[in-house]
Amino acid sequence: MTEPFVESILRDELADRRGDVAAVDERLLPQVDRLARFVLDGGKRLRPRFLWCGWLAGGGELDGPRAQAARRAGAAIELIQAGALVHDDIIDNSSTRRGKPSLHVDLGVDAAILLGDLVLSWADDLFADASAVLGAGAAVRDAWRKVRTEVLAGQLLDLAVSRSSQQDPVVQARDARRVNRFKTAAYTVERPLQLGAALADADPRVIGALRGYGAHLGLAFQLRDDLLGVFGDAVVTGKPAGGDLIEGKRTVLLATARTRLRAHPEQLARLDADVGRDSGPAVTAALAQIIAGSGAVEAVEDEIEALVTSGLAALDGASLPEPVLAELRELASAATSRAF
Amino acid sequence: MTEPFVESILRDELADRRGDVAAVDERLLPQVDRLARFVLDGGKRLRPRFLWCGWLAGGGELDGPRAQAARRAGAAIELIQAGALVHDDIIDNSSTRRGKPSLHVDLGVDAAILLGDLVLSWADDLFADASAVLGAGAAVRDAWRKVRTEVLAGQLLDLAVSRSSQQDPVVQARDARRVNRFKTAAYTVERPLQLGAALADADPRVIGALRGYGAHLGLAFQLRDDLLGVFGDAVVTGKPAGGDLIEGKRTVLLATARTRLRAHPEQLARLDADVGRDSGPAVTAALAQIIAGSGAVEAVEDEIEALVTSGLAALDGASLPEPVLAELRELASAATSRAF
Repeated sequence: MTEPFVESILRDELADRRGDVAAVDERLLPQVDRLARFVLDGGKRLRPRFLWCGWLAGGGELDGPRAQAARRAGAAIELIQAGALVHDDIIDNSSTRRGKPSLHVDLGVDAAILLGDLVLSWADDLFADASAVLGAGAAVRDAWRKVRTEVLAGQLLDLAVSRSSQQDPVVQARDARRVNRFKTAAYTVERPLQLGAALADADPRVIGALRGYGAHLGLAFQLRDDLLGVFGDAVVTGKPAGGDLIEGKRTVLLATARTRLRAHPEQLARLDADVGRDSGPAVTAALAQIIAGSGAVEAVEDEIEALVTSGLAALDGASLPEPVLAELRELASAATSRAF
Repeated sequence: MTEPFVESILRDELADRRGDVAAVDERLLPQVDRLARFVLDGGKRLRPRFLWCGWLAGGGELDGPRAQAARRAGAAIELIQAGALVHDDIIDNSSTRRGKPSLHVDLGVDAAILLGDLVLSWADDLFADASAVLGAGAAVRDAWRKVRTEVLAGQLLDLAVSRSSQQDPVVQARDARRVNRFKTAAYTVERPLQLGAALADADPRVIGALRGYGAHLGLAFQLRDDLLGVFGDAVVTGKPAGGDLIEGKRTVLLATARTRLRAHPEQLARLDADVGRDSGPAVTAALAQIIAGSGAVEAVEDEIEALVTSGLAALDGASLPEPVLAELRELASAATSRAF
């Protein structure tokens, strides 16, 4: 069930939309082809996989036109993700993405804003088509509305929090968790599961169980991402080593380290002085060592484990079919594992 | 029929979405309220008015829940327009909009990118809700897909054309017309009419007539906008006088002037030297005079008149009800009049 089953859907959809753009002007094709390569070139397709689990958990068919429509709804979230990344890279001033130049580096910020808008609007079109096949009603529309509003509001909150002068590490940790809840957990796990289940017209008890799993798992996934952002291998992550430190990302990991370093003002001062700037790999490595030395890594690892456990426990009693449970367990492990 | 009937719909919708954002974090409310003021504060609501005409032309009800759903679909295009303007102002580096600071000037470019995304996604939500009430099918989804892809592709084309080194005025005029066709005519008039008619499940002959009217009228509307962008009163347009000249916008008007000035190389050289920079009101006024002296204004006025005539002629034989015809005539005149 882990095959990249949305690739062909994305390819077909982007080919159709390429035709629509060509009808406006063929000179735009190089830009649209660059956008399509960005969408097709990588990404773990986590969101479509969770949507598909929700669909099966809710009693959706494994094959046939309805199953294909559910897969297309999953592909639609992947287009949202592409648009979000294009705009995110502009906002974060990130020059690389998945190990290659960001879209705005290749095509300019102005075109990248519009291409992001374009792929976001195609996401809605694809979702609307899939919904129509499945006769989706208000519950599906509501979840779709929520997932998009939440991820964008989560990003706005992330901006606000990153730029605030708040120095209290306890408040910083609380804010980081709130950003994680909406920008990652709801968007990546909880809402995709809910959408899949709602498309299958699932029992509310099943939807509740999936959302519980998703809320916990999604937070664990972000905490793993925080660890990879400091200690991850650039080859695996596709981002520079210690990227979160250079960027000055306000993560739970960093806030936890700052809390634990209050008794070590000298180390805390070094951390605060050098996080958020690129002073070369030696300094970045030293910062990572300060964080590791604070005990924050163990604390975050413990939290990940606790969240995975509570997330899986949320599935108890929902009487999900065994293959779906197995896939949800596998995804829980994959999305929070060190090598992901 | 020209009352601003979408204002209350927009207000209610934005209030509901404000609640969704507050559920993420109340600290975001000042930004969302600023966005709401931008949406509610002005705009001629041309697109909802054309959609409503299409709805009535297609046999849609004047009152009741279905009529209200059609109005909500019209309001959805107005939200698209708001998002497009927010992103456009970033791209064009415009510091004012409707006589006030642009959103990105007030809130920063990063937040404005996300707020633009937010209002674009709300547009889709609102359109999906309205479509569901009306039981809209594939024809409506296709028109909705087209209108958004066309306006964004039209903007991408506008960017490409503005930055090209093309100096041949005949090619420039052709490119400007192509941009106008998609960025303005389809988006502002033709597709809104089609959407309204398709939502009412109109006869294809009616839709064809409306689209013919819309394609011609929409081009005329843009030509009037070109004239206002050079000769318009800042108080009426809400933009600086001669704004298109300062911005260096590649309009049909400018291309026409350049074509006509080929026999006057000295004036052409002055135009080419000073368009696209802000050298003060005296220079801008002198440029406007060169354009007027070329005869381009009369040529564009003639073209507007011809397009209005051919647009209205496209309605002949579609047997539209007289009140709808009257409204389409009024809109044709309003959208292309000197004072608009």
